[in-house]
Amino acid sequence: MDQKWLAGVDIGGTTIKMAFVSLQGDIVDKWEIYTNKSENGKHIPTEIARSIENKLSEQHKTKEILAGLGVGAPGPINDEDGSVAVGVNIGWEKNFPLKAKLEQELSLPVIVDNDANVAAIGEMWKGAGERAKDVLCVTLGTGVGGGVIANGEVLHGVNGAAGEIGHITVVVDDGAPCNCGKKGCLETVASATGVVRFAKEMLKTSEQESKLRSMDIDRLTAKDIFDLAKEMDPLANEIVKRITHYLGLALANASNVINPKKIVIGGGVSKAGNILLNPLKEEFQKFAFPRVSEGAELTIAKLENDAGVIGAAWLAKTEAGY
Amino acid sequence: MDQKWLAGVDIGGTTIKMAFVSLQGDIVDKWEIYTNKSENGKHIPTEIARSIENKLSEQHKTKEILAGLGVGAPGPINDEDGSVAVGVNIGWEKNFPLKAKLEQELSLPVIVDNDANVAAIGEMWKGAGERAKDVLCVTLGTGVGGGVIANGEVLHGVNGAAGEIGHITVVVDDGAPCNCGKKGCLETVASATGVVRFAKEMLKTSEQESKLRSMDIDRLTAKDIFDLAKEMDPLANEIVKRITHYLGLALANASNVINPKKIVIGGGVSKAGNILLNPLKEEFQKFAFPRVSEGAELTIAKLENDAGVIGAAWLAKTEAGY
Repeated sequence: MDQKWLAGVDIGGTTIKMAFVSLQGDIVDKWEIYTNKSENGKHIPTEIARSIENKLSEQHKTKEILAGLGVGAPGPINDEDGSVAVGVNIGWEKNFPLKAKLEQELSLPVIVDNDANVAAIGEMWKGAGERAKDVLCVTLGTGVGGGVIANGEVLHGVNGAAGEIGHITVVVDDGAPCNCGKKGCLETVASATGVVRFAKEMLKTSEQESKLRSMDIDRLTAKDIFDLAKEMDPLANEIVKRITHYLGLALANASNVINPKKIVIGGGVSKAGNILLNPLKEEFQKFAFPRVSEGAELTIAKLENDAGVIGAAWLAKTEAGY
Repeated sequence: MDQKWLAGVDIGGTTIKMAFVSLQGDIVDKWEIYTNKSENGKHIPTEIARSIENKLSEQHKTKEILAGLGVGAPGPINDEDGSVAVGVNIGWEKNFPLKAKLEQELSLPVIVDNDANVAAIGEMWKGAGERAKDVLCVTLGTGVGGGVIANGEVLHGVNGAAGEIGHITVVVDDGAPCNCGKKGCLETVASATGVVRFAKEMLKTSEQESKLRSMDIDRLTAKDIFDLAKEMDPLANEIVKRITHYLGLALANASNVINPKKIVIGGGVSKAGNILLNPLKEEFQKFAFPRVSEGAELTIAKLENDAGVIGAAWLAKTEAGY
């Protein structure tokens, strides 16, 4: 008998990433399809199912080789039935029955979790989390996502909102408004858009000299700022210093709750590497309970775009009892 | 056959609380002994064992009725062997073998956990937590302790420091020094001593009128401040407002990590009741992610001094497989 495969799917606003993954967590094949958001995303389950079937026949395999399908989807997931409470970026309205639709299309066991949680699991299983039982993951992308693994399990909380690291309040008194309706959330200063917003604010309020002042401000990216900081641009350095201050504070406060072994920083902003990680470690240590600080290793995510499909595959594996 | 009992023990710096508890979590008998700190607390395990044996014979029972012994002890506990890493208030030095000594003395299965965790479990099982699977407990006593239950399990983290809610940083820029070595921890403003410290600071920096100014400042207690706030004393009200601001911020940030159903406030300061709870709810809502805020109920602890022995009994029950 062939060794079983797992199917992992990571649904994003632009593309849907998919992979066949071995029971050991190695990618056998990966591909992606365009996210069809027409008619409020109603075609997505069918298109995922057809794409998996096509890929299986390309590989001269039948559905029997799949032990199950794991899916990461944006938005809070309802635990009971694997429906998506709301998927703003996709167009899904209230309680889209993602798990039910996929099971119907594929006649396979399907498990659905939040995309940030799934990425955290991927990093825990095969990436920077190195199979630690207590892992805090934060994804610095367009927004700031978070995933928490404690006692070896993903935390969901009472209504699927555990791990909302991006909405820890870090600017208490005069924070910028956040998409969530609050003010001063980590997301307003440490997401890719938050870094740029914060830089624009600093350009106005600071007198420091900077190459930033001669750049097209409407096209500024987070990468530009970290690149200038590497060149020792004074204002860019000040911006990075303040951002890592806020990020260190949020991660330390979250870590005092779960005492993680690994803190994994992922997403586009994390590609800045050591110019982000080194000051972040210092700030983290300043704000974390000493025993928590001693126990935690901060590290950059390793799996990049594969974290989601690998984490989704892990869910499928666990669900199928492998 | 008689129904089994559980023995629960809660070791504090002044007294050791003990109880026999039914498998349903009801106290059959409870009593306490003095904490013998002589010779670095080495006699404590023997005294606990003799006291349990004496109480059993008073009740005309033998040791066979006990399914097991659960213990809450101050300080971080080493998971592997139930030793206490360090118990400052007791005098225990590095890795005091509490579990091993008690098992030797009593020939019963013993399970040891941190006292704040054990109190959290007690509230979850029989108190304000109402058996929710996700509970955040904070104890506002001499210090600020914390316990976290997620997915129905107590979180310990990689080195027993999960739930250190008291050391979440809430005063970021010019916070008071904390016993832990950091600055601006929740404990410096919301513990019984922290409330008094903060009030003294406010007395110096504020001009507001207050009955506090005519009181013996060296004997000031947290209770005095909340009592004056109930009488609408302007400065006492301002102090309570600021304290609930910091406490609300810390609890909201912790809740964004675990998305609890119940947030239980215990310890001496919590006896202030609604004068604390009502403004705290407002501040919490201001800082919590909206979905987290919707899912969470803030409430005052119910079990008071019994939380520890009941939580310890729950641990013994689970360990014994009941």
